[in-house]
Amino acid sequence: MSKSVTPKNENYSKWYTDVIKKAELADYGPVKGTMVIRPYGYQIWEKLKNTLDLQFKESGHTNAYFPLFIPKSFFTKESEHVDGFAKECAIVTHSRLMHNDDKSDLIPDPTSKLEEEVIVRPTSETVIWSMYKKWINSYRDLPILINQWANVVRWEMRTRLFLRTSEFLWQEGHTAHANEKEAREEAHSILNIYKKTVEDTLAIPVICGTKTESEKFAGAVDTLTIEMMMGDKRALQAGTSHYLGQNFAKAFDVKFQDVDNKEKYVYATSWGVTTRLIGALIMVHGDNKGLRLPPKIAPIQVVVIPIYKTNQDLEKINLYLKSLYSFFEKNSISFFVDNREKISPGFKFNEWEMKGVPLRIEIGPRDILNQVLTVVRRDTLEKTTINCDSASESINKILNNIQHNMFEQANSFLNNNIYDVNSYDEFKKIISDGGFVRCGWDGLASTENKIKKDTNATIRCIPFNQTEKHLKCIFTQNAAQFEVIFAKAY
Amino acid sequence: MSKSVTPKNENYSKWYTDVIKKAELADYGPVKGTMVIRPYGYQIWEKLKNTLDLQFKESGHTNAYFPLFIPKSFFTKESEHVDGFAKECAIVTHSRLMHNDDKSDLIPDPTSKLEEEVIVRPTSETVIWSMYKKWINSYRDLPILINQWANVVRWEMRTRLFLRTSEFLWQEGHTAHANEKEAREEAHSILNIYKKTVEDTLAIPVICGTKTESEKFAGAVDTLTIEMMMGDKRALQAGTSHYLGQNFAKAFDVKFQDVDNKEKYVYATSWGVTTRLIGALIMVHGDNKGLRLPPKIAPIQVVVIPIYKTNQDLEKINLYLKSLYSFFEKNSISFFVDNREKISPGFKFNEWEMKGVPLRIEIGPRDILNQVLTVVRRDTLEKTTINCDSASESINKILNNIQHNMFEQANSFLNNNIYDVNSYDEFKKIISDGGFVRCGWDGLASTENKIKKDTNATIRCIPFNQTEKHLKCIFTQNAAQFEVIFAKAY
Repeated sequence: MSKSVTPKNENYSKWYTDVIKKAELADYGPVKGTMVIRPYGYQIWEKLKNTLDLQFKESGHTNAYFPLFIPKSFFTKESEHVDGFAKECAIVTHSRLMHNDDKSDLIPDPTSKLEEEVIVRPTSETVIWSMYKKWINSYRDLPILINQWANVVRWEMRTRLFLRTSEFLWQEGHTAHANEKEAREEAHSILNIYKKTVEDTLAIPVICGTKTESEKFAGAVDTLTIEMMMGDKRALQAGTSHYLGQNFAKAFDVKFQDVDNKEKYVYATSWGVTTRLIGALIMVHGDNKGLRLPPKIAPIQVVVIPIYKTNQDLEKINLYLKSLYSFFEKNSISFFVDNREKISPGFKFNEWEMKGVPLRIEIGPRDILNQVLTVVRRDTLEKTTINCDSASESINKILNNIQHNMFEQANSFLNNNIYDVNSYDEFKKIISDGGFVRCGWDGLASTENKIKKDTNATIRCIPFNQTEKHLKCIFTQNAAQFEVIFAKAY
Repeated sequence: MSKSVTPKNENYSKWYTDVIKKAELADYGPVKGTMVIRPYGYQIWEKLKNTLDLQFKESGHTNAYFPLFIPKSFFTKESEHVDGFAKECAIVTHSRLMHNDDKSDLIPDPTSKLEEEVIVRPTSETVIWSMYKKWINSYRDLPILINQWANVVRWEMRTRLFLRTSEFLWQEGHTAHANEKEAREEAHSILNIYKKTVEDTLAIPVICGTKTESEKFAGAVDTLTIEMMMGDKRALQAGTSHYLGQNFAKAFDVKFQDVDNKEKYVYATSWGVTTRLIGALIMVHGDNKGLRLPPKIAPIQVVVIPIYKTNQDLEKINLYLKSLYSFFEKNSISFFVDNREKISPGFKFNEWEMKGVPLRIEIGPRDILNQVLTVVRRDTLEKTTINCDSASESINKILNNIQHNMFEQANSFLNNNIYDVNSYDEFKKIISDGGFVRCGWDGLASTENKIKKDTNATIRCIPFNQTEKHLKCIFTQNAAQFEVIFAKAY
């Protein structure tokens, strides 16, 4: 903890990993590509999970749990899905270990070879729709609004903590509806929950839109997305909500008898956000002193560092802050009093700055004498003195202000780095220097592909807000079909 | 939902599965031995999880997440552990699927064969202690009090919903301590949390004790257990807490520098309860009408069934119950108003009895006229009339009474079916007829084994409460070392 992190502008990627390690958010696991989420990182996930879970439940969803293991044959049922998902995955082939002949090692018992291989779920559409087939008969059984909090596996070669690991945690919603309209509304309303949560809680602005054909989820009719800008001006897809039409219902033959007595295929959505959001939190808000956490997601919102020499001094400090602590408890403000002995205040300051705690209270005998508190904001590193009498009000106000300020900072950064361009040369310069490009696109996959090959930029989304009309395609100069956002992405 | 379940005394095992299916708690998944936990079953798990999680946190534990995948080599490190755990497990050998030659099927890509096979965790001691090695250096880093909510896999051939499935959900605590005393205290204090939660929330009495050498966890020094009696008088191990000594610390070379500057191996505990507790809930409390849920674990505590012919009647009923509903909301009493059309009240009664909702309110125009409510308790099926004026108080009282009564019923059943026996013939008769036997045991594994071979009964535990002294061993007639509980078990 004593050493600082690699400066952001020197090596962004190393800075990112340094922050994760030094703030004790996560660590690599022993199997290549796996991740350990340490308690401090997991507390962030728990807060996010609770915030989302509450909203899912308020909007009529319930949680359930479906199996980790999926029969291999299921992946051949939805043809687009198989190509998009069944490639890099963990394949279970045996069900028993045995000692080898000289007992020096364990080997898979050849007699335990499975008749059909089993796939560790990369996502659960197939297994869930195989169950929905059993549960859905009539329009009375609809809608089904189920969410699951689970781990999923996609075998990755190039891994990066929180952003891309072989196993990650997520929630996946899977809903079944009697008609297209209701299913499409569901997909949109979930995207709104994602947008609201990410903006209000994580203080990260997002751009909402639709994915192009080539970027959408394998098996979806439409993929809606929230896109973010990271600190290095690259894009991160932060959450997706898919309108699946009747694709999975047809693949798994899920029909229902409608009010009109006719048999129809069910309409579906699926949607998810992952622990990758913690990666976004680090990349959007972090600085060269480490993590910066918005108060609403911070496991510890206020850290108190008593500065004292004798135990008597410490007792005085505790007494002095007693009413403040009970205010924190009453108002569910999470706080930690760092009483650790033999560790200098300066060391503690650095440590809690690294961990991104939004507000630090430094308190010594002189503060008591003056009936004040010294507080330091993590977002601005600004140090101020507040009166003891009105401390609780002041702190509440500062915390709200930090939350607001961090969103505004991120929002300015986003807006300052989106460029409307008129020529492909300009386009290439922005993409190479860093930033999002907003421009016209003729709607052709071939154009999209050429630009991708040329610049590594992809269409992040077709924003719901189409600001300009009569645009030309930035590449072909033909009439644009959409205004889109291009960027390099994680 | 219309048909009833197989009577309990006709076929207990079929009765159990019928209740699970008809109450919509769970279902088998497509891969043999896997389970789908349906929303109603999952809500029970969520309530139990929240109750436990709060207590873990209040006692200083934090949650974290460790990887699903464990290198095969880790299982060879702790010699007892490998024999107990590494046998029936899911082995991942490949990381990519490819089309076969004629594109008719998907097959594991031979070029993706892993250098070292990966095991899907059956439990996480090994992977967690490989991380603790990185995190622990000094006594300052101790204790580590981490819990994880996760899925684990043990390949099972004979499966049974909730009781034994290839994948199940659980929590697993893994703690690291500087000395034996603290670690042993941790193991005991967790067992107390389990006992308290299961007795207070699930209304199931338990017997606490220590496992014998042959029944303990592979890798533990001591295994503490809570044992229950099911409705068929067989035993169920409902939760275990292990004192692991320095076994895993030695296997993974985890040392710390103590206050005295000496290097020492770390002391450990691990402990867990699983979704099997839902199986226990069904088997202890269920009857021939289905599930019976204690109010503290019931997803729906009160179901309201309006009995009406016209919409006007329904409106009157809603108006009549308005203040009761707001009482429920204020007091966090979960309720559901079953307004479904075209379904008869009788059908609804059966359905909610099957789902075990503790209290049903039936309400029709006549009840309004008389300013009363008709309420039916699920535990006793007793129907009473309560005054509208004092309805909220009465209902609160009844719910508390149901919780209490269900525990007392289960407790009487347990006590009436534990027998102190004096001869091995008596022993065999009880075991064959059904029940727990409390008797002396000479402490020899050979004796334990002979009894097991002879009767299928195992020592469930050596109870902490040793009631009798100077007992003789029920089998050898030698002086007993312990008083123990024998039973057939799930």
